[in-house]
Amino acid sequence: MSTDPVQHHRYLDGLSVPQRVKVVEVGPRDGLQNFSERVPLQLKVDIIDHLSDCGFSTIEVGSLVSTRAVPQMADSDEVFRRIVKKPGTDYIMLVANIKGLQRALECSVEHIAVFCAASDAFSQNNVHATVDESLSQIQVICRQAISLGLSVRGYVSCVLGCPYQGTVALTEVVRVAGILYEFGCSEVSLGDTIGSGTPGMVKELIGAVSERVPVVNLAVHFHDTYGQALANIIVALQSGIHVIDSSFGGLGGCPFAPGASGNVASEDVLFMLNGLGIDSGINLAALLDANRFFCGAMGCQLPARVGQAMQPVDSGS
Amino acid sequence: MSTDPVQHHRYLDGLSVPQRVKVVEVGPRDGLQNFSERVPLQLKVDIIDHLSDCGFSTIEVGSLVSTRAVPQMADSDEVFRRIVKKPGTDYIMLVANIKGLQRALECSVEHIAVFCAASDAFSQNNVHATVDESLSQIQVICRQAISLGLSVRGYVSCVLGCPYQGTVALTEVVRVAGILYEFGCSEVSLGDTIGSGTPGMVKELIGAVSERVPVVNLAVHFHDTYGQALANIIVALQSGIHVIDSSFGGLGGCPFAPGASGNVASEDVLFMLNGLGIDSGINLAALLDANRFFCGAMGCQLPARVGQAMQPVDSGS
Repeated sequence: MSTDPVQHHRYLDGLSVPQRVKVVEVGPRDGLQNFSERVPLQLKVDIIDHLSDCGFSTIEVGSLVSTRAVPQMADSDEVFRRIVKKPGTDYIMLVANIKGLQRALECSVEHIAVFCAASDAFSQNNVHATVDESLSQIQVICRQAISLGLSVRGYVSCVLGCPYQGTVALTEVVRVAGILYEFGCSEVSLGDTIGSGTPGMVKELIGAVSERVPVVNLAVHFHDTYGQALANIIVALQSGIHVIDSSFGGLGGCPFAPGASGNVASEDVLFMLNGLGIDSGINLAALLDANRFFCGAMGCQLPARVGQAMQPVDSGS
Repeated sequence: MSTDPVQHHRYLDGLSVPQRVKVVEVGPRDGLQNFSERVPLQLKVDIIDHLSDCGFSTIEVGSLVSTRAVPQMADSDEVFRRIVKKPGTDYIMLVANIKGLQRALECSVEHIAVFCAASDAFSQNNVHATVDESLSQIQVICRQAISLGLSVRGYVSCVLGCPYQGTVALTEVVRVAGILYEFGCSEVSLGDTIGSGTPGMVKELIGAVSERVPVVNLAVHFHDTYGQALANIIVALQSGIHVIDSSFGGLGGCPFAPGASGNVASEDVLFMLNGLGIDSGINLAALLDANRFFCGAMGCQLPARVGQAMQPVDSGS
């Protein structure tokens, strides 16, 4: 774990990975929406403020969707109002429809995210609409949001498999990602919702999608269900990706994806990036503090390996 | 998770990884030696027989070292006598000194392993000898074993860091690995004992060591303490490595390495290899059965992500 820049530069050369990576912290939304206990409003605000202080330049803070479908996110507008907006940090709000966009505008959100599955079976289960019906709705949201000066991030879910239909055609992933980009999404995040993807599939996925969406506009969003996330991220970085979604503590999952465990842990991603000498602008020690703060408040332990490992190593050597 | 061989071939081409990989199952020794509860003799025999049936071509079955230092391995000779020796499968016994070699010969072991740290601090703590003192002893073991027709595997521990001294010089790792190879070790396994290595370090490590030991004679032995193991394995495969050590269920750690968690789980490795279309000859479903058998007998849950994930996915989709 040398910090010698010369040595780090050698790592970067040999592996063909970017020198700088943006890590998008999705824990407060994608992580918390599936958390088993209700998290108090002020704790959500506090953890987002902690994450801002860690140096994340982009944090997804909540979602303005049906309160009935995702009760944990019912107070997202109020969370957004209360957080400290750090200059230079983008705070993203997920919206599912025009009503959600209206709520976002009412609390002066500047960055929204929209989502569409690459699987009709998942889409039907999640939003009771086909992929194309969902895309039509997203087009309306994108037009209005972009005309008002907001930026839009697009999520494609089930890019490497679907919990309901199994295999998902790569051509369909490319089509949905391409349409979101054409709608004006400045970043399209490719989500392996069930976490069953492996590095060869990831390379093929990014190769195919980047023929339709410039690779600089792509992000990867891996779940660590089968422990493959970091291996997939390395290959994604080698394929030109420089935006990685992750969740503090490995928090998360998906309420609509049976068997999906948490997002890849931000701590584990950062440990790898730091070891590679890739600049992310994020302070790992501060992130571990944020993890401990949340776990202390909620009386839980989160699955991030680095979070678990740092304690004995700090005291034992 | 297509099984289309054409698609798999494309994965292999794009990633520059080998078509076939040998996975060395080290759970019955490296895993169990640190298991918190005493495992009954017959259960050790049964789990090794299960692992043979899974298709592993090499299994490390125990160690003939000081019973006081590693009480869990006190019955390794008897375990070896009782296991079913499947034709074509190599059963390895770890030995620490000439006395251990004598015990190995008494029960007709054909494959032994020896170990040496690349860190004097670790070596002093582990075997109360410097690295060079340890190598002198290993030389005597290797000479006698090889003259009697046994094969010898050499482990180098602490290759990417030491729990006692911190940084380990790459030159020292290269030196120790080179000496073990010169002593006649047919395979030299590079162990990241504390699991803190990241992919750039792994690439540098293998590049440096393979200047002294042919890469076909090298293996990698990663612990998943910081969740980095599969990412490190991908880069190792890209660097020409085709032998991977792992432990069923992610069992393990090291009693002499504070903070070290388990070895990388064989299940997680196999899930990745299968996804890549790399042939290992091992049946993942049978391995999950073996994991469940052990966990059922011991009333425990092992950390392999795939082992935990397969249950809900089987029943939920």
